[in-house]
Amino acid sequence: MKRIKLIIAYDGTNYCGWQIQNNAITIQEKIEEACRKLFSQEIKLIGASRTDTGVHAMGQVAVFDVDTTIPCDKIAYALNARLPEDIVIQKSEEVPLEFHPRYDAIKKTYNYLILNQEFILPQHRHYATFISKKLDLGEMKKATKLFIGKKDFNAFCSAHSSVKSTVRTVYDLEVKKEDSFIKIVITGNGFLYNMVRIIAGTLIDIGLHRITIEDLNRIIESKDRANASATAPAKGLTLEKIYYGEEKI
Amino acid sequence: MKRIKLIIAYDGTNYCGWQIQNNAITIQEKIEEACRKLFSQEIKLIGASRTDTGVHAMGQVAVFDVDTTIPCDKIAYALNARLPEDIVIQKSEEVPLEFHPRYDAIKKTYNYLILNQEFILPQHRHYATFISKKLDLGEMKKATKLFIGKKDFNAFCSAHSSVKSTVRTVYDLEVKKEDSFIKIVITGNGFLYNMVRIIAGTLIDIGLHRITIEDLNRIIESKDRANASATAPAKGLTLEKIYYGEEKI
Repeated sequence: MKRIKLIIAYDGTNYCGWQIQNNAITIQEKIEEACRKLFSQEIKLIGASRTDTGVHAMGQVAVFDVDTTIPCDKIAYALNARLPEDIVIQKSEEVPLEFHPRYDAIKKTYNYLILNQEFILPQHRHYATFISKKLDLGEMKKATKLFIGKKDFNAFCSAHSSVKSTVRTVYDLEVKKEDSFIKIVITGNGFLYNMVRIIAGTLIDIGLHRITIEDLNRIIESKDRANASATAPAKGLTLEKIYYGEEKI
Repeated sequence: MKRIKLIIAYDGTNYCGWQIQNNAITIQEKIEEACRKLFSQEIKLIGASRTDTGVHAMGQVAVFDVDTTIPCDKIAYALNARLPEDIVIQKSEEVPLEFHPRYDAIKKTYNYLILNQEFILPQHRHYATFISKKLDLGEMKKATKLFIGKKDFNAFCSAHSSVKSTVRTVYDLEVKKEDSFIKIVITGNGFLYNMVRIIAGTLIDIGLHRITIEDLNRIIESKDRANASATAPAKGLTLEKIYYGEEKI
């Protein structure tokens, strides 16, 4: 028996997120189907991150166990031939049987893309949130500092969530302008449910001068979801990369 | 009567190109339909560039004549409300009645996007041509010099075309690496049918070492389409911008 690690990119537009569920098409289901066709047996995937409906990925990670003679690095090609065009395995490799994509992850990077100009660019309609009013990049950049470090992010966690601890460490948070886009790149040891999208929504409100840096300080301190901004739309979010022990933090 | 100039962005994936035709959905048709709904009369658009099936635009230009009390800069909003989400007017303004989007254009910029890594990134599947074999960027950059200037580009003109002269001036041609992408940006006073895609196909062959810089010299000199490379796929091509007299060359 071998444990195979997949690195997966997907366009989340047409899926109800990563995790398998009844009566909805998910990315996990599509990959399990492709595995079933390839290996002629039921395969159960363990994913690293449960991305929501409409969220994209460049570097989702999942593992499964199988007995196979197919060279491990060729499994990516074989699965891609059996997957729809909006899901593409980027890499397949054998990992130790005890490797776990969620528990062994040491940090994750997400990016959140905002198109900030008068009109939507149709090529980007599924991959960026559109804001026509000019965002104050300077204020957004200033605000990033308040999120960095080990903090209780309860104010930035969706109310539906029930986790033991809402303390997480944000290692890095950057706001960059690229042509008409503003890109938020965040790296942390883990993220609460909807945390990246609520942080993005809060940074957008800072950029629109709806809230000030002082307000943001109070929102973080309050640890109350009711005080933070609305969750920014799913389509702007991409799971960029998941880091494991073999890579430097 | 006023002449209205539109700057138009579109995702060409689901259209049979710009120009109206029977039994096929085109971008021109969709905008004329939106105009008909808005102004309650038949409107005939004159476009600057007849982009092919699957080709995208950020800055297509078209004009139409109309009697209207709608402020000219608001026509963009009114049309966007009546257009599908993959066509978005970026700007509307009044221009002199003698302004012609094709005859008055002094230069055009196109870009051609190549994803150059082992696997496709699904978010870019409609907006870039995928080449898994590593391209030699240095050779491609060297080759760009041969295209610049006033030349007979007959070797880079689709055989179906019947134009008076195949002499065009290429002002600038750049090949740049951006992450896993290679972007070809070309600016000229005009382009022959499929010229940008044949140049892109030729640069790709240079990057793959299928032809040398010396071969390219001979291909240009030959003025024979049979010698140049295959036309690169439409989906990598975007009409970036059309320049008129008011802007500097």
